[in-house]
Amino acid sequence: MNDQTNILATETAMANAIRVLAMDAIEAANSGHPGAPMGLADVATVLFNRFVSVDPTAPDWPDRDRFVLSAGHGSMLLYAIHHLLGYDDMPAKELARFRQLGARTAGHPEYGHAKGIEVTTGPLGQGIATSVGMALAERLHNSRFGDDLVDHWTYVLAGDGCLMEGISHEAIDMAGHLGLSRLVVFWDDNQITIDGATALSTSTDQAARFTAAGWHVQRVDGHDNDAIAAATEAARADKRPSLIACRTVIGKGAPNKAGSHKVHGAPLGADEIAAAKAAMGWTAPAFEVPANIRAAWQTVSQRGAANRAAWADRLTASDQAGAFRASLSAPDKGALVQAIAAYKADLIAKQPKVATRKASEMALEVVNAALPNMIGGSADLTGSNNTMTSDMVPVTPGDFRGDYIHYGIREHGMAAAMNGIALHGGFRTYGGTFLAFADYCRPSIRLSALMGVPVTYVLTHDSIGLGEDGPTHQPVETIASLRAMPNLTVMRPADVVETAECWEIAATSDRTPVAMCLSRQGLPCIRKDASGENQSARGAYVLSEPEGGRDVTLFASGSEVELILNAAATLADQGIRAAVVSVPSFELFAAQDAQYRDHVRGTAPRIGVEAAIRQGWDLFLDRDDAFIGMTGFGASAPADQLYQHFGITAEAVVAAATTAVQKGM
Amino acid sequence: MNDQTNILATETAMANAIRVLAMDAIEAANSGHPGAPMGLADVATVLFNRFVSVDPTAPDWPDRDRFVLSAGHGSMLLYAIHHLLGYDDMPAKELARFRQLGARTAGHPEYGHAKGIEVTTGPLGQGIATSVGMALAERLHNSRFGDDLVDHWTYVLAGDGCLMEGISHEAIDMAGHLGLSRLVVFWDDNQITIDGATALSTSTDQAARFTAAGWHVQRVDGHDNDAIAAATEAARADKRPSLIACRTVIGKGAPNKAGSHKVHGAPLGADEIAAAKAAMGWTAPAFEVPANIRAAWQTVSQRGAANRAAWADRLTASDQAGAFRASLSAPDKGALVQAIAAYKADLIAKQPKVATRKASEMALEVVNAALPNMIGGSADLTGSNNTMTSDMVPVTPGDFRGDYIHYGIREHGMAAAMNGIALHGGFRTYGGTFLAFADYCRPSIRLSALMGVPVTYVLTHDSIGLGEDGPTHQPVETIASLRAMPNLTVMRPADVVETAECWEIAATSDRTPVAMCLSRQGLPCIRKDASGENQSARGAYVLSEPEGGRDVTLFASGSEVELILNAAATLADQGIRAAVVSVPSFELFAAQDAQYRDHVRGTAPRIGVEAAIRQGWDLFLDRDDAFIGMTGFGASAPADQLYQHFGITAEAVVAAATTAVQKGM
Repeated sequence: MNDQTNILATETAMANAIRVLAMDAIEAANSGHPGAPMGLADVATVLFNRFVSVDPTAPDWPDRDRFVLSAGHGSMLLYAIHHLLGYDDMPAKELARFRQLGARTAGHPEYGHAKGIEVTTGPLGQGIATSVGMALAERLHNSRFGDDLVDHWTYVLAGDGCLMEGISHEAIDMAGHLGLSRLVVFWDDNQITIDGATALSTSTDQAARFTAAGWHVQRVDGHDNDAIAAATEAARADKRPSLIACRTVIGKGAPNKAGSHKVHGAPLGADEIAAAKAAMGWTAPAFEVPANIRAAWQTVSQRGAANRAAWADRLTASDQAGAFRASLSAPDKGALVQAIAAYKADLIAKQPKVATRKASEMALEVVNAALPNMIGGSADLTGSNNTMTSDMVPVTPGDFRGDYIHYGIREHGMAAAMNGIALHGGFRTYGGTFLAFADYCRPSIRLSALMGVPVTYVLTHDSIGLGEDGPTHQPVETIASLRAMPNLTVMRPADVVETAECWEIAATSDRTPVAMCLSRQGLPCIRKDASGENQSARGAYVLSEPEGGRDVTLFASGSEVELILNAAATLADQGIRAAVVSVPSFELFAAQDAQYRDHVRGTAPRIGVEAAIRQGWDLFLDRDDAFIGMTGFGASAPADQLYQHFGITAEAVVAAATTAVQKGM
Repeated sequence: MNDQTNILATETAMANAIRVLAMDAIEAANSGHPGAPMGLADVATVLFNRFVSVDPTAPDWPDRDRFVLSAGHGSMLLYAIHHLLGYDDMPAKELARFRQLGARTAGHPEYGHAKGIEVTTGPLGQGIATSVGMALAERLHNSRFGDDLVDHWTYVLAGDGCLMEGISHEAIDMAGHLGLSRLVVFWDDNQITIDGATALSTSTDQAARFTAAGWHVQRVDGHDNDAIAAATEAARADKRPSLIACRTVIGKGAPNKAGSHKVHGAPLGADEIAAAKAAMGWTAPAFEVPANIRAAWQTVSQRGAANRAAWADRLTASDQAGAFRASLSAPDKGALVQAIAAYKADLIAKQPKVATRKASEMALEVVNAALPNMIGGSADLTGSNNTMTSDMVPVTPGDFRGDYIHYGIREHGMAAAMNGIALHGGFRTYGGTFLAFADYCRPSIRLSALMGVPVTYVLTHDSIGLGEDGPTHQPVETIASLRAMPNLTVMRPADVVETAECWEIAATSDRTPVAMCLSRQGLPCIRKDASGENQSARGAYVLSEPEGGRDVTLFASGSEVELILNAAATLADQGIRAAVVSVPSFELFAAQDAQYRDHVRGTAPRIGVEAAIRQGWDLFLDRDDAFIGMTGFGASAPADQLYQHFGITAEAVVAAATTAVQKGM
């Protein structure tokens, strides 16, 4: 795909078009980052002009190349390119509205805001780490459908910040280990960060570092177009992932400010822009692009469209066309629901007592059998997270036929890779770690939620119930901190049946990621009725309603539901009628109508129980209702002793309920 | 300090004592990780026997060597060593109570639970990253007080997990860049992780990686004592931080299970223990150590005690003794309070309108002048976080006379380093990033809170008020997620005066870290009265009380206090009497007595306002009280437009208050 048409003189003009559009848009917004778009304009122009295969008329074409601007603050680079390529939702007026309310041209590239944005970037390091998941998904999909249908590249532009962030270490090690040969990262090696010269804070030999991680590494002058192209060719020819260190001048084209950290994140000002345009010989009015330059960019789009047409012909001719299309479609919810229903009926008949982490594995056996394109994994806790079902096969370096990823001790890299797998398409995915270590991947969980990517986090060892590992491993605030996040469904099932229901929801979620909080310790089966409805989908439901009205309502999630059931039985012996409400998900409950919510909450005094902090429980509790849980960090001891020590017991619930009922009399 | 007394035959016996104590304690607990203590027993024995200078009778001796077990799951290694060294709080019965409730021998080493535990470890990578802060603090302290008073080493044992975690990248790059020559890391290169062989998930050449980061690197057989000692000598002779890759056999000494991931995290079982002891020729009963072995270990303690005595003589003779002791003491609170009081009086007279991030810099000018041992820094956002006061001087590679750290784009490494600086002693410290990126360092913030280390996180750009950078940079759930964390004081001051008060609290905090949430945008001075009391210390206080009683009470934090003040003025025009409550800190308010809290909350209807989610606001609000804030992620636009767009306006407060008052009538 090395098209020679627009090389030489026009390529410089093509790059200058990016620079000018970026300068003008940032000036209009009086906000933004001109340094990266101007410094990277040559690299990006060579990459698109000679290599990238995308079709603006079909931005979701599955075999397109993925272009990821990991240095997301350089968003105008991406918007300018999309404008020049002719994406129909990126007219000049969108550039002129850069960073304004409702514009497609948000401050950082936002997935879903405009066509062709492959991933939301801005939080540094996330782009490169998500790209690893994309490049992995490409190889996974390729191994299933062959070169005719899946044969594309993932190109990344990353800055110093991306490479300094810890997540980059996890990402590049994974990519090097797995041998993701179709990943090419261009490093904007401009020797400048916000504080000043990179020498203020780093002395790392990045080339040696990437080599140590198993990458193919080259260095080029990031303003020498033929050198950039030759390095890209060499990168594509190598079997390893590739880093191309591009020595660039930040803000190149700004005659006075280029090369300084002052050009990183502030508009250039009218005078500097005028001087820059004069030096380029650029005379067109703001947001107008000369026809010959526009035409040059549109040949890139035409090449992409031709590639797509050829691909479409191959798909039509392929005997795998149906399976290929199915892999990219939403899961067959009907089949899954049916399989889960049968499984649940069996559970209700047998009433197994298992930890919900084990219940998760059992549910996944059903889910993974119904959804052939599931990719599982764990951050080196496979046997603890129970994430590897019986038919799963690990992916190994260079062999992508498997469907299970040993992510290593890399929670953050795993989460970002999961986002990349989901964004790429062709697969659904989940990955496991301990709930306490959700903190290690929280920035990527936030991006799952912000982008609306339906990945599932399997978070086991979800409370002091994990016992002896102690407070570093015991979440007390983690569930609340996850519930705080918009567009994340946090689930904490109480037993094997609820766990199956939660997996049904997670596996068919469309736009919302799920955090599944699971116990280490064994839990009895609390669901007795075989109605078949997915009661967990209500978020909270009355598990047992006393005859003759409620004196008190007990609420709990997960492992504490057993405890309130026991308390209710004791209370019944004392003549106190307690309703028991199981609460697998706050978010799903909040989405119910008021009538349902009021029914569940009831009007009797309420007691909430969760082996975690109270924050968030006001969804169920009034101010004066009691809560039995944690107020500080945990401790190291056997689980049953910890529950006693912290007063999270059926006896405490009984005492609180008795007090509440007496107070109400 | 290379003492030859106990080398050769007894060193093996000394190491076997660790192995036996670890096996027996883990068996007694029926829980724990024998693999690391047994595999690392030789390395640890050589290190202590020939190098480490600690005095169990004075565990906080400032010039002691710091020993950090970054692979915290191998806690029995540390406890066994402390027992053998004769720490008086680590008798055999504590080993026998390993992982039991209230024992000093928690599942993972917990700072403060037993003497000599330098840092809480267990969350992987934290130990090595915290050590970087310790080694930095040692050099900082050395540059101020010289070799006679500060001249010690930081030794770290790290596992594969520590080196796979992203935080290790940030940490080792910082250490290499700064040239932390007194940091020596022993890597337990046992080729095993929980999932199995390291080859399942990594192919990185760690030696090359550390070399790329500017480290001195050696490889040794981790069971060849003289080789370990020679490498340690070479590491100490080099001017760079050092990695010694120790090829070990996990669980060495267990005849059948050594070398397998099965020995990582489960007791060995009685038969295997018996076989191991037989192979070692170990016949002593459980938790008993033969006298000659105990004597050998105690020579290590005796050497440390002699070193300490010599050091104490040097301190006594030093003309810097007073300053040295002062650097290790709690700050002079009286002087600081006085300085802040004068500064506040000036502010109240002048009423400056500044962003609270700028107000933070202004307050820090006062704080840093009063506290000469403050170390500041930022994760490459110095000019945005306003963290560098006028007299601060950056620390540069090899020159540690400065007091400001350019941490680079390494939030996680910064946070862990801050913990290390604080744990080392001699300094107080703060560091800045954007509030949204608190997520990037959350695991280290959690350790600040769990350990009770009084560092301050300067978290600017604290809401949609940052404007155009958009939702990736706009915290909406972050404040709630931080408020969820035990033992963390979250502050969100409303103006320049509250910011000064919050800094007074942060700079004198003893056992609680502080997260200071600060605006990007300018805020008027809302405090008019010059009473001098630190009203922010109450957490929330009545800023204006209407005459004749309240019809409604308005609550807000930070930048939204201006908004409720405006709303109150409009309401007053309408004849509605609104009290205005400023809420700089939920945690500090929750700590007030009930009478004060009830007074502030009042009995009139309440409106809470914060440009963030409601979660947690039930501290102030009843269930039916209104809250005006965010329910989802933000957007990219100028700040004032975003406040309008999301309906966080004085008009909305007025409308809600009017409705609430009418409903109450």
